[in-house]
Amino acid sequence: NKYRADHLLDENGVKVSEATGLELLEKLLNENRVSCPDCGSVNWKVSSFLTMFQTNIGPYKENIGFLRPETAQGMFVEFRQIYEINRARMPFGVAQIGKAYRNEISPRQGLIRLREFSQMELELFFDPLNSRCPYLDEVKDVIMNILDEEKVRRGDSVPHNVNAREAVEKGLVKEEWLAFMMALSQKFLCMLGIRPEFQRFKAKLEGERAHYSAQTFDHEVLTGKFGWIEVAGHAYRQDYDLKSHSIKSKTSMEVVEELGCPIKVSKRFAYLDPTKVKRDFGQLSTQIFKAVSGMKPYELAELLERYGKIDVSGTVIGKEYFIFKEVEETVSTRKYIPHVIEPSFGIERIVHVVLEHAYREKEDRVILSLNEEIAPYKYAVFPLVKKDGLDVKAKEIYLMLKLKGYSVLYDDDGSIGRRYARADEIGVCKAITVDYQTLEDDTVTVRDRDSWLQNRVKIFEI
Amino acid sequence: NKYRADHLLDENGVKVSEATGLELLEKLLNENRVSCPDCGSVNWKVSSFLTMFQTNIGPYKENIGFLRPETAQGMFVEFRQIYEINRARMPFGVAQIGKAYRNEISPRQGLIRLREFSQMELELFFDPLNSRCPYLDEVKDVIMNILDEEKVRRGDSVPHNVNAREAVEKGLVKEEWLAFMMALSQKFLCMLGIRPEFQRFKAKLEGERAHYSAQTFDHEVLTGKFGWIEVAGHAYRQDYDLKSHSIKSKTSMEVVEELGCPIKVSKRFAYLDPTKVKRDFGQLSTQIFKAVSGMKPYELAELLERYGKIDVSGTVIGKEYFIFKEVEETVSTRKYIPHVIEPSFGIERIVHVVLEHAYREKEDRVILSLNEEIAPYKYAVFPLVKKDGLDVKAKEIYLMLKLKGYSVLYDDDGSIGRRYARADEIGVCKAITVDYQTLEDDTVTVRDRDSWLQNRVKIFEI
Repeated sequence: NKYRADHLLDENGVKVSEATGLELLEKLLNENRVSCPDCGSVNWKVSSFLTMFQTNIGPYKENIGFLRPETAQGMFVEFRQIYEINRARMPFGVAQIGKAYRNEISPRQGLIRLREFSQMELELFFDPLNSRCPYLDEVKDVIMNILDEEKVRRGDSVPHNVNAREAVEKGLVKEEWLAFMMALSQKFLCMLGIRPEFQRFKAKLEGERAHYSAQTFDHEVLTGKFGWIEVAGHAYRQDYDLKSHSIKSKTSMEVVEELGCPIKVSKRFAYLDPTKVKRDFGQLSTQIFKAVSGMKPYELAELLERYGKIDVSGTVIGKEYFIFKEVEETVSTRKYIPHVIEPSFGIERIVHVVLEHAYREKEDRVILSLNEEIAPYKYAVFPLVKKDGLDVKAKEIYLMLKLKGYSVLYDDDGSIGRRYARADEIGVCKAITVDYQTLEDDTVTVRDRDSWLQNRVKIFEI
Repeated sequence: NKYRADHLLDENGVKVSEATGLELLEKLLNENRVSCPDCGSVNWKVSSFLTMFQTNIGPYKENIGFLRPETAQGMFVEFRQIYEINRARMPFGVAQIGKAYRNEISPRQGLIRLREFSQMELELFFDPLNSRCPYLDEVKDVIMNILDEEKVRRGDSVPHNVNAREAVEKGLVKEEWLAFMMALSQKFLCMLGIRPEFQRFKAKLEGERAHYSAQTFDHEVLTGKFGWIEVAGHAYRQDYDLKSHSIKSKTSMEVVEELGCPIKVSKRFAYLDPTKVKRDFGQLSTQIFKAVSGMKPYELAELLERYGKIDVSGTVIGKEYFIFKEVEETVSTRKYIPHVIEPSFGIERIVHVVLEHAYREKEDRVILSLNEEIAPYKYAVFPLVKKDGLDVKAKEIYLMLKLKGYSVLYDDDGSIGRRYARADEIGVCKAITVDYQTLEDDTVTVRDRDSWLQNRVKIFEI
């Protein structure tokens, strides 16, 4: 049977990180004599597993396609167009919500690990040389629990308590925009009813986070059932995505900044050395010249500087086959590929933590104590009985509240006690009961979902 | 090369319906010497083509899965639960919005034929014996253009002009709920800016519509580019879906109606005749008895009455192998499987017709004349110049309108003329300009997107 090696080890008390290699995982499974939950076998082979769903597209099913494993890439592919529609102003953000699909080996734990799930992702593009976020003061009251890489490495679970600006000043978070997004993320979950003390930001260690990320924090929420679970990730992806798309699609993803006054810059260009290439690559030379001619000399220079070599249609060509030229230029614009901060939310997981944190039991009854912003109804209106005009009056109040723009539930079915219980169970904030006194003095009782306290108030004061 | 036979014929002036069989399509293609758009060949073979995308699920990729070709079925599968959550009250509707996927042979025409598209579907469940819709008067002013089956068959393209009630009374539409949904559908498109004269409802002929539908109307919109195109379908699916799920899943989809007073009903039950079955089916008998024992005798009787036979794990067993019993019962409840009306909207097609109908050209400029409800911004606020306090004043007005709940765009970039043009192009309803006079008397100019007329008004009157 197939299982996720890291999960199996975890369940057997062996802690491994997401960066643990295949060989080590196999060794740990076999050394610890972890047995197969199905057949009891202890003889494990560990291999990697493609979790993307594959399908075939077209009349001949000739094209292989995959269901997207994250929503993010569409926003990078369309960066150029969105940037232009935004009239070339920086910084800016793009957000998307949608389904993502992963062929999880063992989907389980209800909403926590699904094969089809919903993501909410935002890409905030900014200039890495001018990366101040002007909104840090707006979130200065959001005090976050941050476990930075150092604490995570030491196994220290007592977090720093800092706001976004302090997090940057103390060097815990590398970019202001990243700290700002983390603070917004915490505010968002607070609005959904998760108290700050049940939230924390845990840095991913270098080997655990994606190779393109300079820093990643998991936004975690404490649950009774599963402990701390990740509900969002905040990654500083630098220019990795735009650069990769730019190279593969041969489309520039650079943005242009108008400089106040022209400046002198020195640029490096790289050109193939025809003599050396012909000498060492023989017949392949023509193909190599053709492929390289499609790339810009200054981009080539940068790639060679970074990697020491490039891959041209499968042939690796080292730095030594290039001639470099240094040129001084006076320019009035500066070109750069924006960096990006990506907050990414797992919606089903958020639904899970919100429901778990809102769930209360009181005298054998269930209350879904949802925040007003996300409660299904703000008010329920009940006539005490369905006769003597109480129902007519109750419907009037129901319609009046609807017209005021509130979400309102009308219920005249069963005893008042049962109706209160039903409203509590789905999280209706206030229940308004119309009784005989209402007909006399236009007052109603307003009952609070959480405290069960009742107040008698004038209808127009609701 | 592969093409859709009906589309190829259509493009070559040969009209065929969706019900045309494979053989006839092939004959028509070859007789009319329709040539392949790619290679010119006139030798066609017609075969059917599965348009669902297939993938494999699970650690061994052992389960075959398909991307859903419509959103509808989820609502039927979950009918039981939704019905109970709705506290067993009838009628009720369930709506869903989401992606659907079809491996179209030739996706084209922009948003009109996509392989990945968005559907908005509603299932309205009702009692077929008590199928009055109480809301017909609310849509009595919605006059629809209806081409019923008779007109479609005769090729008469002059529609009936009727409201929902008249459509039912004249026998054009079979169910009140169906007529009501069609009227709502027209109202919805009107709200999106499609005038009624560019909308019509065209009946599908018996052979064209799905076999389970007792009546289907395509809601069509006239476009300049593609003629009349379908943007929604309204189908009376009867109890087909619930019954099918009920049989396959062996889960009852019946609802219970409490009767005012008990009534006598005669029920038919069907039981296998053991002698005949053993005589004719020999060794298969045990298997047949086992399979049939899982079905309810009165459901069996109904199926046999309808089809004359049933299929038991691949073996067809005729009516004659059953013994029927007629029993009189006194009951205080009535059980039935609800019927369903399904309005189904193609969102991308609606986006297309809305954009096409909103698009205007005026003095070489483009105006997107979107209805206020769907315009991206209600107001744009422009300072005449970015100095002398005009920008400060303009920002104040911008914030004031935002606080009032309007969607507002602030733009101070380029000449006023260019800003008007940009706002017109994306459909901003009104543009407010702050000039020097504003500083003196708190008045601004308000310019209308469609007429380009300008009025000078007090700020607080906006």
